[in-house]
Amino acid sequence: MLVNGNHYRSVWFEKDKIKVINQILLPHKFEITELKNTEDVANAIKTMLVRGAPAIGVTGAYGIALATKKGEDPNEAKETLQNTRPTANDLFRGIDHVMDSLKNLELSHKDLYALKAANDYANRSVEACKKIGEHGSKLIKDDSRILTHCNAGWLACVDWGTALSPIYAAKRQGRRIFVYVDETRPRLQGAKLTSWELLNEGIPHAVIADNAAGHFMRKKEIDIVIVGADRIAKNGDFANKIGTYEKAVLAKENGIPFYVAAPSSTIDLSCETGEKIPIEERDENEVHFIGRERITPEGAKAKNPAFDVTPAKFVTGIITEKEIFKPEEIAKVFKR
Amino acid sequence: MLVNGNHYRSVWFEKDKIKVINQILLPHKFEITELKNTEDVANAIKTMLVRGAPAIGVTGAYGIALATKKGEDPNEAKETLQNTRPTANDLFRGIDHVMDSLKNLELSHKDLYALKAANDYANRSVEACKKIGEHGSKLIKDDSRILTHCNAGWLACVDWGTALSPIYAAKRQGRRIFVYVDETRPRLQGAKLTSWELLNEGIPHAVIADNAAGHFMRKKEIDIVIVGADRIAKNGDFANKIGTYEKAVLAKENGIPFYVAAPSSTIDLSCETGEKIPIEERDENEVHFIGRERITPEGAKAKNPAFDVTPAKFVTGIITEKEIFKPEEIAKVFKR
Repeated sequence: MLVNGNHYRSVWFEKDKIKVINQILLPHKFEITELKNTEDVANAIKTMLVRGAPAIGVTGAYGIALATKKGEDPNEAKETLQNTRPTANDLFRGIDHVMDSLKNLELSHKDLYALKAANDYANRSVEACKKIGEHGSKLIKDDSRILTHCNAGWLACVDWGTALSPIYAAKRQGRRIFVYVDETRPRLQGAKLTSWELLNEGIPHAVIADNAAGHFMRKKEIDIVIVGADRIAKNGDFANKIGTYEKAVLAKENGIPFYVAAPSSTIDLSCETGEKIPIEERDENEVHFIGRERITPEGAKAKNPAFDVTPAKFVTGIITEKEIFKPEEIAKVFKR
Repeated sequence: MLVNGNHYRSVWFEKDKIKVINQILLPHKFEITELKNTEDVANAIKTMLVRGAPAIGVTGAYGIALATKKGEDPNEAKETLQNTRPTANDLFRGIDHVMDSLKNLELSHKDLYALKAANDYANRSVEACKKIGEHGSKLIKDDSRILTHCNAGWLACVDWGTALSPIYAAKRQGRRIFVYVDETRPRLQGAKLTSWELLNEGIPHAVIADNAAGHFMRKKEIDIVIVGADRIAKNGDFANKIGTYEKAVLAKENGIPFYVAAPSSTIDLSCETGEKIPIEERDENEVHFIGRERITPEGAKAKNPAFDVTPAKFVTGIITEKEIFKPEEIAKVFKR
């Protein structure tokens, strides 16, 4: 999508390096960071320099390609990369996709095949996100006011985004839309990244404190909620950024449709219910500090779960590249 | 309550000045600010240097006493002070209490009567908050995990607090308790003030992102929710800090009792329902900036409602200085 009028992907491979848009420095500084080895890639994922389920899936895929190109053991790179963050399913999918391409190959060709596999995975991810936009945009009527949580835009993917893709598609189809952007504490991906994406695409929006979403729902100022997902279980429960569960419960209470947009790589049929999804607990300093500013008193403790699980009963529909379906239809639509 | 082991009130009158704990500088700096005239008082309320419904009620009362002492027209002071913030009922109660004391008095005695009336109002507020603690502490069992939103502690009152008063009472009765503190964006009163109060009283707690409260409720890690109120309507609907409505809906969804703690001065029987309570919209820069740190991109817009309304159906009970009662019992308990 657009950055100052130029088209970018959030992550790509160039010569012997992975290049990623540095998501820690946004929105105040737009900078491309080069990842030169497995350690760089692992750190970029852990520190959320690159984040978002599909984006870390593609970064993981490129990470295996990079290790292979450098003549390293891809199994070691796999081990390192899959231990960076536990919740998103796409990370394991991306890594496994490239690992599979290496099976039964001669040593001399491995690097080329790995890069081709990683590029294929990235391109398919872009295509899936574009399709999510096409399907999802049908849900967005003219003059719609849409609430979204966190950043499930193109930065979180490679291009287009998941939750934001239907919004971009609706905008290109000429519909008038307004987006309420949850700022999404503690990491503020809504305030920092979603707002920046929407500004670059010229889409009217307002950032709100996470506390205000319920108020606007109750005042009938929100028509539809669309969020992304880090992992969707077989029964339709899903994990997404902390706070998603709150918005889902509030949407149901206020009779507002609540959609989850995600590529099918987010669906983990081996996970029977949401209770089986591991929830990452991140450093409590993400709560204590905002930038350089400490907001809590010295000596205070904090808890910082990075994700929550929303039960399927709160989900109106799941938007994938294939179609839009009800959570209870997952097993039917996606056979293992 | 305690600050580094010494007892303080949040606001008091000393010689010709109102003294208040500066709530903007907390938790990193403990400083007493002197308010020397009506303009000082109005600015302190507007900028939230002093905040919390009962505390601004008492500050308003002292503001009339200060103006009277300085030989100013108390009616002009009243006009200025009641136009500082629109939502809290206590502000109007505090001002009117002192104005009433001035009726039919000789000119020479007005300042003494006004100060006595303001001190009476402050002392009654302290007494009411202490009683709220006594009644409310009966709801807190041993090993309870309590969620609170914003700061409805002694800083928001004069002493004891409203939502925190039952917690302080339970602690002094020797019960083991743990408090989950919503950080409460955008002004972060939970992270900055509630956490600071609890540390000073030695009460174990964790600050959480507002987004995480639902997660902990769903995981059965919260046993009871207690919040304050800025205004309670006749039908039991109430206005409180933005985000309160979200927590109330989530508590109901998860079968967790949800209590509102407030002195009876918060109840406005002239307000039939919550829809009649005016909701303050504050500067959007409170969302854009955290301290010196801008979190949104330049050019982004924000919306910043300071309060929301929670319908009575989500309220398990209202804890006042008189007793604990159901929201539908207000009209019976409080006759005009």
